[in-house]
Amino acid sequence: MRDMPLDHGSLEHLLPSHWKTQITAWLAEDTPSFDYGGFVVGDAPRTATLWGKSGGILAGVPFFNEVFAQTGCAVEWHASEGQHIERNKEGGGIKMKVATVTGPARGILLGERVALNILARCSGVASMSRGFLVNLRSAGYRGQLAGTRKTTPGFRLVEKYAMLVGGADGHRMDLSSMIMLKDNHVWSRGSIRDAVAAAKSAGGFSLKVEVEVQSEAEADEAIEAGADVVMLDNFSGEGVKAAARSLKQRWAGKRHFLVEVSGGLTLDNAEEYVTNGELWTLLSP
Amino acid sequence: MRDMPLDHGSLEHLLPSHWKTQITAWLAEDTPSFDYGGFVVGDAPRTATLWGKSGGILAGVPFFNEVFAQTGCAVEWHASEGQHIERNKEGGGIKMKVATVTGPARGILLGERVALNILARCSGVASMSRGFLVNLRSAGYRGQLAGTRKTTPGFRLVEKYAMLVGGADGHRMDLSSMIMLKDNHVWSRGSIRDAVAAAKSAGGFSLKVEVEVQSEAEADEAIEAGADVVMLDNFSGEGVKAAARSLKQRWAGKRHFLVEVSGGLTLDNAEEYVTNGELWTLLSP
Amino acid sequence: MRDMPLDHGSLEHLLPSHWKTQITAWLAEDTPSFDYGGFVVGDAPRTATLWGKSGGILAGVPFFNEVFAQTGCAVEWHASEGQHIERNKEGGGIKMKVATVTGPARGILLGERVALNILARCSGVASMSRGFLVNLRSAGYRGQLAGTRKTTPGFRLVEKYAMLVGGADGHRMDLSSMIMLKDNHVWSRGSIRDAVAAAKSAGGFSLKVEVEVQSEAEADEAIEAGADVVMLDNFSGEGVKAAARSLKQRWAGKRHFLVEVSGGLTLDNAEEYVTNGELWTLLSP
Amino acid sequence: MRDMPLDHGSLEHLLPSHWKTQITAWLAEDTPSFDYGGFVVGDAPRTATLWGKSGGILAGVPFFNEVFAQTGCAVEWHASEGQHIERNKEGGGIKMKVATVTGPARGILLGERVALNILARCSGVASMSRGFLVNLRSAGYRGQLAGTRKTTPGFRLVEKYAMLVGGADGHRMDLSSMIMLKDNHVWSRGSIRDAVAAAKSAGGFSLKVEVEVQSEAEADEAIEAGADVVMLDNFSGEGVKAAARSLKQRWAGKRHFLVEVSGGLTLDNAEEYVTNGELWTLLSP
Amino acid sequence: MRDMPLDHGSLEHLLPSHWKTQITAWLAEDTPSFDYGGFVVGDAPRTATLWGKSGGILAGVPFFNEVFAQTGCAVEWHASEGQHIERNKEGGGIKMKVATVTGPARGILLGERVALNILARCSGVASMSRGFLVNLRSAGYRGQLAGTRKTTPGFRLVEKYAMLVGGADGHRMDLSSMIMLKDNHVWSRGSIRDAVAAAKSAGGFSLKVEVEVQSEAEADEAIEAGADVVMLDNFSGEGVKAAARSLKQRWAGKRHFLVEVSGGLTLDNAEEYVTNGELWTLLSP
Amino acid sequence: MRDMPLDHGSLEHLLPSHWKTQITAWLAEDTPSFDYGGFVVGDAPRTATLWGKSGGILAGVPFFNEVFAQTGCAVEWHASEGQHIERNKEGGGIKMKVATVTGPARGILLGERVALNILARCSGVASMSRGFLVNLRSAGYRGQLAGTRKTTPGFRLVEKYAMLVGGADGHRMDLSSMIMLKDNHVWSRGSIRDAVAAAKSAGGFSLKVEVEVQSEAEADEAIEAGADVVMLDNFSGEGVKAAARSLKQRWAGKRHFLVEVSGGLTLDNAEEYVTNGELWTLLSP
Repeated sequence: MRDMPLDHGSLEHLLPSHWKTQITAWLAEDTPSFDYGGFVVGDAPRTATLWGKSGGILAGVPFFNEVFAQTGCAVEWHASEGQHIERNKEGGGIKMKVATVTGPARGILLGERVALNILARCSGVASMSRGFLVNLRSAGYRGQLAGTRKTTPGFRLVEKYAMLVGGADGHRMDLSSMIMLKDNHVWSRGSIRDAVAAAKSAGGFSLKVEVEVQSEAEADEAIEAGADVVMLDNFSGEGVKAAARSLKQRWAGKRHFLVEVSGGLTLDNAEEYVTNGELWTLLSP
Repeated sequence: MRDMPLDHGSLEHLLPSHWKTQITAWLAEDTPSFDYGGFVVGDAPRTATLWGKSGGILAGVPFFNEVFAQTGCAVEWHASEGQHIERNKEGGGIKMKVATVTGPARGILLGERVALNILARCSGVASMSRGFLVNLRSAGYRGQLAGTRKTTPGFRLVEKYAMLVGGADGHRMDLSSMIMLKDNHVWSRGSIRDAVAAAKSAGGFSLKVEVEVQSEAEADEAIEAGADVVMLDNFSGEGVKAAARSLKQRWAGKRHFLVEVSGGLTLDNAEEYVTNGELWTLLSP
Repeated sequence: MRDMPLDHGSLEHLLPSHWKTQITAWLAEDTPSFDYGGFVVGDAPRTATLWGKSGGILAGVPFFNEVFAQTGCAVEWHASEGQHIERNKEGGGIKMKVATVTGPARGILLGERVALNILARCSGVASMSRGFLVNLRSAGYRGQLAGTRKTTPGFRLVEKYAMLVGGADGHRMDLSSMIMLKDNHVWSRGSIRDAVAAAKSAGGFSLKVEVEVQSEAEADEAIEAGADVVMLDNFSGEGVKAAARSLKQRWAGKRHFLVEVSGGLTLDNAEEYVTNGELWTLLSP
Repeated sequence: MRDMPLDHGSLEHLLPSHWKTQITAWLAEDTPSFDYGGFVVGDAPRTATLWGKSGGILAGVPFFNEVFAQTGCAVEWHASEGQHIERNKEGGGIKMKVATVTGPARGILLGERVALNILARCSGVASMSRGFLVNLRSAGYRGQLAGTRKTTPGFRLVEKYAMLVGGADGHRMDLSSMIMLKDNHVWSRGSIRDAVAAAKSAGGFSLKVEVEVQSEAEADEAIEAGADVVMLDNFSGEGVKAAARSLKQRWAGKRHFLVEVSGGLTLDNAEEYVTNGELWTLLSP
Repeated sequence: MRDMPLDHGSLEHLLPSHWKTQITAWLAEDTPSFDYGGFVVGDAPRTATLWGKSGGILAGVPFFNEVFAQTGCAVEWHASEGQHIERNKEGGGIKMKVATVTGPARGILLGERVALNILARCSGVASMSRGFLVNLRSAGYRGQLAGTRKTTPGFRLVEKYAMLVGGADGHRMDLSSMIMLKDNHVWSRGSIRDAVAAAKSAGGFSLKVEVEVQSEAEADEAIEAGADVVMLDNFSGEGVKAAARSLKQRWAGKRHFLVEVSGGLTLDNAEEYVTNGELWTLLSP
Repeated sequence: MRDMPLDHGSLEHLLPSHWKTQITAWLAEDTPSFDYGGFVVGDAPRTATLWGKSGGILAGVPFFNEVFAQTGCAVEWHASEGQHIERNKEGGGIKMKVATVTGPARGILLGERVALNILARCSGVASMSRGFLVNLRSAGYRGQLAGTRKTTPGFRLVEKYAMLVGGADGHRMDLSSMIMLKDNHVWSRGSIRDAVAAAKSAGGFSLKVEVEVQSEAEADEAIEAGADVVMLDNFSGEGVKAAARSLKQRWAGKRHFLVEVSGGLTLDNAEEYVTNGELWTLLSP
């Protein structure tokens, strides 16, 4: 198996046309009524430079651009989405010029904080995703690393986008995407088999079904019921490896499924958990 | 294989809490400013009866209830979601009492048209879905019947819900759900293989990927690339059967995939197309 | 009396500036979060052709244009709003080129389904309206044909627009437009006279008042009370003709009113119902 | 002809269910983020009294109620919608208790300013409408007095409602209601006849058409073309009387139309303009 | 102390980018569905002139511009924001040309009423503010004149902007701005001291705290507690002067505070109330 | 000076009535269309327990409550807002029961992730604020600690609220609150004096003005111009102490102002920066 790349390509193409209204709402949050500072500076043409101060993966370019487009400014980039920005070396180090914003003075100030807030969070999540991924690759892991739904309310699109920039898998977007069955769902229906059947009844053939299991026996039941993914919940690193191998052998040629592992993963213990060919859930960024 | 049931259970549990704001918008569409009729009738308590005039599957109960809840009325149902309402027999026939609405006179009139418009469309789509499904089952088809994205803008949730009430599969909800690759996608990336790889790169492990193919050779390429579903586009009835059988045999134990057939299906030609275990796309309701 | 024309002129001038936000909402419905297909195809320039497959009246041009404007594409039309598109002749027939869409590949795919869904419904309603109207004209009817409020929730503007393209009268837009008094209104106020007085009290001189009546006696009461329109409800074809003639004679020179007929009209029975100079209600398209 | 009443009945029945969301937006305008005063007072139960300070017609009760309903308070009224509140007599005079608001302290303060702002404007418009109307009735005028579209953007529903409470006619609500043709419309179409024909072509039978005319000759053209209302623009008081009489005689038994007079009406010159049986436009409140 | 200027500079710079969506909502209010008049006039290029009829301060230019930008028209101004427009002299007087609007005929009519409604109200508030201010300056007052929160719901931004154009101080924008403590707040906390402490606890160092007081003793308590502004409520003109002088002397060099006077100010009694260096509250415009 | 308390009281009273619509939007983000999991579990009554796993300050109770109120559930709390939750001791430690949620199974699952996401972020910001504050108090600092505008777009209300729960000062909410003048503002106006004058011209007496300065000379200019707060930007710890002392002495009894220090503060260097009686800016949470 060839090495998996660390990035996904031109991710801005993922953004639909209507997300711009969200940017408008964020600008409104930062200036609900009058823009007093804008009055002070007026609209003489100005240029502002964005310097890279802390190192990491640059992420959030299309959002940053749209903020300034809405305040009447233009952005020229000197680095590209997903590029690694070197940490500014203290004591005579080099600061990297990341972008130049040109436009009326008040337009620059009106968009500045919103644009930077998005860029900082987006780059932070991308950098963290990349960091995890690099560690896992170093430990020999060739599977995917996936995010969670533990995102900031109202800001999920940006955070999921950032995970992709960092090289991770966004995992399911929301409750209307892939169906995940946990203990509550199983308990409510009486058995894993019945819960999976109910999920497939409403979700149909176009949605995957994932089942969280506590044991190999439960995993077998889920796979037999037609689960597309089984999540080994709170298994030890060794337990994960053993279970994944055993499940793969037992169902080879009969059922197709993925194994996901959740819980307990940190930047330090990646090596212990590694079991090739499977999924890991990234802790909430 | 046991017979597949014709319905999905308590589908109102699919509706999230926030969809009620959509009902508010629909009421506003029908009364943008003053409610002159409401002024005429006032708010003395009244009772109105919903009679079933044309036969079919009743669908839309939770939407109907919410319309009247927002206008201050209560609904008592004499038939249940998904139930078949007999066609009123002309000339002395029986009209079925479907629901009773109680509340202030102006509340009943304010909600009446919106509630009936939803119920009529929802029941119509459900009845059509059920009609197709019954024909297909009679012809021996045991697979699923699925909808399309050819829904009325702004009204998709109701129409997809109606398909489920009718017993069909909702198919993918929107462009953010299961990824479908058609000739344009393939052409843009150069090959089916590369298009599937791109789709999986951004969509990750939680979304299925479907590829529309024109031949068995293309189907093979898609399946090898990891497609979860291959759609045989505009094959003849016989061609579908042959291709599905051949693909299933060739990839048995190696890859898991579903075969979907699209185009040309009508209430009359169901039998010709039947090939067990696969999917059919319902023409737009 | 000269023949009434079948169309209304440049109807796109009816659309106010703000309806574009509705198009944005419909695009959002079809791509709530990521546009995976857009990521696959990228934004290389592409051209797509819209072929007319099924015959009928073309309607929805301004909506179609706006969808693609919002996804960054341009549309060139080879047919005009309201034009009759010939049905594609099976077996070697001619397919008519209706429009060409040019723009970035992902913009075309992002707007495609929404634009086609609008165009299909809009053209369908326009074609049905035109069909009814042609039948009525053939039967010698020279009055108007009008729509109802039985439209799809959230989609009324498009459907009313389509009725106009088809040559029909849109009838009242909503409960805040012309006041219609039915049996419930009359019952609540005690008499037709009092219900009309109440309606005029709140609606004032700028809104018309229509009263639904079951007999000539009721029609007389409504006309005397100042109704602008009387609707003969569920009269037979012969009954309609007789009542309309009788009312017109009795009130000539004293009151001005229109007669509308509702219920039971189908494409087949138009001739029976025809009574010149009056209105008919189009069954819900 | 019996005397026209000065009020319209229970006008709160005109308000549809969804207008409550507008109240929510107005509350948000007054407290965009934190409610610091609410923090200071807390939510101990309190009672507040609304005293009538300046005389006039009380109007806005349903809006006032809804504001406080949304902040968790209840309102008890000691005066009713449309009632005349006596002006507080200076120097030992009596202040009238209008309403009592009960609820948590912070709920009262949160709603107070929004509720009073609505009540003050609504009562002001109602009082002005009533004042005009009383003057006109004193001068022997038995026709209607109607408002305009010169309302505060975003606040039209309340202001039109207030006109009705004051006894006036709301006139057309917006550009989607009764069609008014002014010189620009006529100029664009070439003649009054063609402009009216165009208006009826799109507006159909359910909307009235009004034409603004500068002379009796123009009025004749408009009436012949089928105008429902002719507006005599900037005629003198005597000119209005003469023109209205002459038009009524000339078209008696042939066409039905109303005469509206616009421009120049003030509380002082009402008597001069009076011409029975016709409409007057209220200057913007 | 130098004379205070009567205006504030380029106030349009106060308006953030997102307020344009409010204009869209106001246009939608005036044309909720079809624009029948727009259909009649079509979109041939036209020019319209705005004449200044009544004298006063011109205010609302940026809002007026945006209305027409959204309907596809351009505005050329012949007078500037804040300029005094001479009252049209009756009988042969001069009418001032204020602006020229160019664009498609239907765009001009679609925006006309909304644009004029904004301009009329905005100019009215600006003119009234200026009138008060000129009177106060004539009476020797050198302090500020400030507005209130008694604005039209949903229209506050325009009205506060208009106050600024007129030369007044906008005062606090809403309940989330400067904290004002009235008798209710004090009563709830038990003392002025505790109410101010609570306000500062939540509002922090960035918000000012104002306390409404009935006596000099209460003013002392408020100032000691750290109030930034004390409002003398319903003091007589003489009482205001005496109290302000006494407070300033007593706290000189110890605390910094402003004195505001509220209530009873009219265009006639300005002179009586004047006490240099302090604030006056403008009665609601 | 008495010790400053670490908390602010019943902060839920800061939340206005309309913020509940934001919760609705967040629920919609997590379930844009169907709630498949809700279908699986149904609406049988259930109880769920929230356990405190990681230690820290509990914050976000009113938001958590509202999420579940909207999904039809009730919450009982076993800990109170602002309470310190002990870290779960590993190896046989105690897990603290924080809250119990009761309601229909699908309501609990529908709200679970949104409610936890809010609670986790809110508690995290509160805990970080408290941690900084405790460190500063230990180092003898008796002034305030204030937040920034570096918050997550769309989520500022929650994060500012969390700072208050943690005991910090929220600092200005947005650009429409306290006016901050930085180098760009000064540069645009030519001098600190002119920039402050412009700010006061538009902002008026109710808003504070803060000026960011690089030297004591600039601070003097700002204070003389009437700045309410001067921010010493990037001074060293010693430099801050010296400058603050010097400024306070020089302006004693002449001007009132606060000194704020920004930049470089971390949990480790608090002691170095401490200078009693002044403000510190909390780094972005």
